[in-house]
Amino acid sequence: MWAEILTIGDELCRGEIVDTNSSWLAAELWDLDVTARWMTSVRDDAEDMRGAFRLAAGRADLVVCSGGLGPTEDDLTVDVVSELTGSEPEVHEPSRQRMEARFAARASHPKMVRQVRVPAGARVYLNPAGLAPGFEVALGGVPVMCLPGVPREMKAITAESLRARILELRDAAGGAERIARRLWRVFGRGESQVASALEGVVEGVAGASLHYQVSFPETLVKVVVRDRDRAAAEARLAAVDRAVRERLAPWLYGEADDSLAAALGRALSARGLTLASAESCTGGMLGALVTSVPGSSAWYLGGAVTYANAEKVRQLGVSPATLEAAGAVSEACVREMAGGIRERSGASLAVAVSGIAGPDGRTADKPVGTVWLAVAGPGDGVETMHFVWPGARDQVRTLAAWWAMSMVKTIAERS
Amino acid sequence: MWAEILTIGDELCRGEIVDTNSSWLAAELWDLDVTARWMTSVRDDAEDMRGAFRLAAGRADLVVCSGGLGPTEDDLTVDVVSELTGSEPEVHEPSRQRMEARFAARASHPKMVRQVRVPAGARVYLNPAGLAPGFEVALGGVPVMCLPGVPREMKAITAESLRARILELRDAAGGAERIARRLWRVFGRGESQVASALEGVVEGVAGASLHYQVSFPETLVKVVVRDRDRAAAEARLAAVDRAVRERLAPWLYGEADDSLAAALGRALSARGLTLASAESCTGGMLGALVTSVPGSSAWYLGGAVTYANAEKVRQLGVSPATLEAAGAVSEACVREMAGGIRERSGASLAVAVSGIAGPDGRTADKPVGTVWLAVAGPGDGVETMHFVWPGARDQVRTLAAWWAMSMVKTIAERS
Repeated sequence: MWAEILTIGDELCRGEIVDTNSSWLAAELWDLDVTARWMTSVRDDAEDMRGAFRLAAGRADLVVCSGGLGPTEDDLTVDVVSELTGSEPEVHEPSRQRMEARFAARASHPKMVRQVRVPAGARVYLNPAGLAPGFEVALGGVPVMCLPGVPREMKAITAESLRARILELRDAAGGAERIARRLWRVFGRGESQVASALEGVVEGVAGASLHYQVSFPETLVKVVVRDRDRAAAEARLAAVDRAVRERLAPWLYGEADDSLAAALGRALSARGLTLASAESCTGGMLGALVTSVPGSSAWYLGGAVTYANAEKVRQLGVSPATLEAAGAVSEACVREMAGGIRERSGASLAVAVSGIAGPDGRTADKPVGTVWLAVAGPGDGVETMHFVWPGARDQVRTLAAWWAMSMVKTIAERS
Repeated sequence: MWAEILTIGDELCRGEIVDTNSSWLAAELWDLDVTARWMTSVRDDAEDMRGAFRLAAGRADLVVCSGGLGPTEDDLTVDVVSELTGSEPEVHEPSRQRMEARFAARASHPKMVRQVRVPAGARVYLNPAGLAPGFEVALGGVPVMCLPGVPREMKAITAESLRARILELRDAAGGAERIARRLWRVFGRGESQVASALEGVVEGVAGASLHYQVSFPETLVKVVVRDRDRAAAEARLAAVDRAVRERLAPWLYGEADDSLAAALGRALSARGLTLASAESCTGGMLGALVTSVPGSSAWYLGGAVTYANAEKVRQLGVSPATLEAAGAVSEACVREMAGGIRERSGASLAVAVSGIAGPDGRTADKPVGTVWLAVAGPGDGVETMHFVWPGARDQVRTLAAWWAMSMVKTIAERS
């Protein structure tokens, strides 16, 4: 089953926004075993839109469109699709009533009413996250599904209605296979290392395929298993899951929408541990990452951002002699940083980061990309790691913050 | 002059990567007064690629393609374009020699050689950032430009060769207008407020157009002025520039690739001021933002991430009585936080952030999205700001960190 994804908007064609809708929809379709063979974007122009809908319905088995369902005169999807299907735009009464309940008198404004229209006779998908409903028509026998361009609304309608409908269409088209799928998140090993570790892991597993995706600084691994019987697909996926976890331990930290920060939080919480941080080159990025997790206050106390050496001395008690002899980017310094913040904050574990993110700051023996990490606790010990990464300032900082989380997680899990 | 942008890659059609190349190319074209009327993505599939190239050359005046120029068997652009133009792939000798100079013996590997091929007779664009050269052929009289899919390489070839070539083609096509353009960055006022402030600003300015782009949390304003005479276009743009700056002061902070953190750094450096920070709900995000600027160690000393209340007391000397009476998210608390880090660090200015980022943590009188900011210094004064933002955790944190930078910048500039 081949699909075409059509996104509509002047702002896309002027390059003012990146089209994240197309890739999101493509990933959804791929997960449903439907391949997006063409992805097209056109402007808010009736002629171009007509051309794009006709072309898509002429070559694909399914068309999914986003954009052009808003309140302004530029939003032409309902009008164009109505014209192409020989129908008329009409107000979708349930959507209008929902709008009225929310906006009272303002809901009768023509602009507001404009966005609750659908082509007469269309199958309508209620919008749980906004006003404009999605809808589906047949164009030359091909299902054409139209969704709002606002990503949150597009995603909500897809989750609530479209996924089930697409599976139904796919099954009706003869693709009666069920799909079991899983996405694992891996940090600490690059794509080629992950691929080597997983070599042959789906070999001999009927209907299974393996895919990789780099999402810097992590690697995503996806497996899909197809079978006419859902339970059989799930059972084979479970076997693959065990093998993948075994081969990628300890680098595989989670699934789906998990984050390394959340996994770190679980590792700490489960053991009643708390964390404090002392950051130099990352400047607060590590703290920002761990506190991106709702509820992180249960296990993260805070820390020091010691960008200047004087702050390392003042806030962490790093000895001026160490800074003089070994420099701020050294094993000795990160040991003192981690020990200092741990002692002062009373955290069970403390992590310290110091490095040269560039583009300036390298010394004769320390190139740009040099980073030292230290973790103090939970006992008396301090562990350190040392890296020299190629790459730009932001990449070095990101890797430093992620490796710091990874290191704390590993030590917490061992304790 | 109408263009089509064509991007090629299985990973695009599986939704594994977001197609940032298309939007980048569309913005470049738009800046050159060429409109991307169609943007299409297809898989690494010879049949689909043939169809896409034929369709594009049949409807556009210019086709710009990225992807499919790599070393693997999946990279089919040279082969498909050669076939369509009735030529043969051939090794581009200057590119091969550059590769040999860099990779010595490995350069003779068939995979390596594969990526320095071009269709015989093509106009070749050297790749200053990688191995695979770009090239241009005519397909049914329409120029078709092919670039590598690696964004860095695509951008380098565009900057070095393609921009001039596209201008040449555009002028030859009769569009002999020159373009003067500017992009301003605005933080602190939303798109609709910015649009109101700029109402009529290009009225009566011949050949001028105004565009907005939201790039959360900031708003970008673009003006383009067209004229057959470059100097005339530049002169009119200079007048618009003065008007825009006047109307958007103090919210307009920079142009083009500037960042608010860099603008803050300039404001501090110019006055010999230093900064320290005390962060609660942002967890280090503010420090990470300011230290994203290379050389920020000249004006940023560091700070405290005081996520736990005990850390606010320990690191900043916030009084337990204040925390008890007013709470951590209060004017009294951020005043003490800012004063505390300023006194301890010796910085000329200190900024403090405390808020409820959500989803939990709201109280009877403080909803999620409540944020207090304080700036202490450079004199004895402390200024505060208070916000209640709708939006998700990450949005609240981002707004808090950006408003903190904006507030420090304003106070520094006044001092």
